[in-house]
Amino acid sequence: MAPQTQTAQQWLLAKKPTDAPILDGPSATFKLASSVPLPELSDGQILVKTLYLSNDPAQRGWISAAIPADRLYVPPVQVDSPMRARGVAEVVASRAASHKEGAIVSAGTNWTDYSVQNAKECPVLPEIPGLGASHFLGALGTTGLTAYYGLVEVVGAKAEDAVVVSGAAGATGSMVVQIAKKMVGCRRVVGIAGSDDKCRWVEKLGADVCVNYKSKTFKEDLAKATEGYVEVYFDNVGGEILDLMLTRMKTHGRIAACGSISGYNSESTPYGIKNWFEVITNRIEIKGFIVIDYLSKMQEVQQKFVKAIKDGQLSVGDDNETVVQTAFEDIPKTWMKLFEGGNTGKLITKL
Amino acid sequence: MAPQTQTAQQWLLAKKPTDAPILDGPSATFKLASSVPLPELSDGQILVKTLYLSNDPAQRGWISAAIPADRLYVPPVQVDSPMRARGVAEVVASRAASHKEGAIVSAGTNWTDYSVQNAKECPVLPEIPGLGASHFLGALGTTGLTAYYGLVEVVGAKAEDAVVVSGAAGATGSMVVQIAKKMVGCRRVVGIAGSDDKCRWVEKLGADVCVNYKSKTFKEDLAKATEGYVEVYFDNVGGEILDLMLTRMKTHGRIAACGSISGYNSESTPYGIKNWFEVITNRIEIKGFIVIDYLSKMQEVQQKFVKAIKDGQLSVGDDNETVVQTAFEDIPKTWMKLFEGGNTGKLITKL
Repeated sequence: MAPQTQTAQQWLLAKKPTDAPILDGPSATFKLASSVPLPELSDGQILVKTLYLSNDPAQRGWISAAIPADRLYVPPVQVDSPMRARGVAEVVASRAASHKEGAIVSAGTNWTDYSVQNAKECPVLPEIPGLGASHFLGALGTTGLTAYYGLVEVVGAKAEDAVVVSGAAGATGSMVVQIAKKMVGCRRVVGIAGSDDKCRWVEKLGADVCVNYKSKTFKEDLAKATEGYVEVYFDNVGGEILDLMLTRMKTHGRIAACGSISGYNSESTPYGIKNWFEVITNRIEIKGFIVIDYLSKMQEVQQKFVKAIKDGQLSVGDDNETVVQTAFEDIPKTWMKLFEGGNTGKLITKL
Repeated sequence: MAPQTQTAQQWLLAKKPTDAPILDGPSATFKLASSVPLPELSDGQILVKTLYLSNDPAQRGWISAAIPADRLYVPPVQVDSPMRARGVAEVVASRAASHKEGAIVSAGTNWTDYSVQNAKECPVLPEIPGLGASHFLGALGTTGLTAYYGLVEVVGAKAEDAVVVSGAAGATGSMVVQIAKKMVGCRRVVGIAGSDDKCRWVEKLGADVCVNYKSKTFKEDLAKATEGYVEVYFDNVGGEILDLMLTRMKTHGRIAACGSISGYNSESTPYGIKNWFEVITNRIEIKGFIVIDYLSKMQEVQQKFVKAIKDGQLSVGDDNETVVQTAFEDIPKTWMKLFEGGNTGKLITKL
């Protein structure tokens, strides 16, 4: 009897969105493919079952209709290809001695339930007491690395700096707050987040204060929180908050431009930055960055984080991620929560 | 008989403008004061007669209604105070041994015909064969220093870089073009200017090509001129051209933010920068700068320029400035030419 062919479910990109991705109907951004046959394993390959999916604002850029292919730092996702995503997966069949069945790995699973991977591209995750595997998609994965890279390397935050972080309740922002306050020891850390509850959570993480950008008094609250101006701004959101922050920077202030989520779903009508003169008059330095330029440091930074966790400087427990149990059919719906501002910490899809 | 009191004419700031300065009528930006009595000279002081006035886009910022006082790098000009300006002046009376009558000095004359100055703040200008005194307001003054500082120090342009310069026919831009091509030896220098005539002049200065931003085909022309993208952009104009240039930068490209003249007279309705995602996806570095941070290097850079002139690398002859013979009453009108795009090279008011 011939061996049974393994099949997979996959969410494919159906149409590149210009504004908010669309979940249903004829203009839907994604489409579901069932019973997709997978190739048989070659030597060095593994068959994995996806357990968790990483949800990242950057994914919106990979399917953008507005960004030309040669202006993106990775190849864009092609229409009819599986939606790209990092995942944590379990090895269910193996032709690689290094990867036993049952091992838990980090992998470029994309939005699939089963996939064939090259074992050497799928590091087996170490077991760290008290930390679930999903944290390797967040604090101990590229999210934590992004926070560390941007804050410590790109703008070189020091103890004498006051730091503002937007998207402070998000995956990256909540790590920046902790690294700034507890690892670097910055003299002042101010968060910006989208609800009073989130703000209190960000303060619990270590921020001296966190201000709610949806409040009517946001502008005044931010001015008060940044009295005397600040040396460093870690920008996860772009748009109007970035524009306002240009007016709150000290002379020779530094901005780490990490993301601009506020504009990701309004590509056809982007918000325009108006306070540009501040960049000149106050000699502000702005540095865009992408974590892929820093992946070679992953292990080194992971070790720093593990030590910081042991020393009580970094909290990456369950309240630092929002894990959403999701049926395969609802993967896009869970991903869209990124843009609805619902999550605190890393948004994780649990299949 | 008591000594006759020296009086002066002065142009005072009447009203801080929000948009284009207004020359006449009840809302006029400036007002003329005549027969203003000057104090008698103290020891170490000199009485000077203004010969030339420097016209600089930065002056617009000093009288801005939109920029709060504590966000400007110099104290703003106060209403009812003389309009601030650098000038070249002749010593007509002296109580300083270092400054003989008839000496030509650089001074903060403001918009006045006569003024009392502290001699030690007014360097006597050296005589350089072939160069008029007015060049000490331009190529050999802070304008040239701005170009050198931004290009060589702030963004560290090297021979392997392709450089785009906006406002390339202006005072600073025309120096950047020359320094980039002839002193640094950049592999490619592209100018952006506002007329075909200006573009041909910029090419004569050394630009490989100069594109006219008023042309209907500007976007395509710029794309062609920057094929393969560029490492460095020296931005004198901000606004729409900066926004477009964000899409023409190489990965890890560097931008020197020197000025944003396009927005100086539209403070109430600034153009919004929309291509911000490019800063992130292409890891662009943007550095705002102001020449006052580099004034200590004035003499050193002047010497480099004088050597470059002798070596034929730098042309700062009469065609590098637009000298406008101006009656005292018309000083504001000549200054306004800065924003009309009429001048090539440094715009100088000759009284």
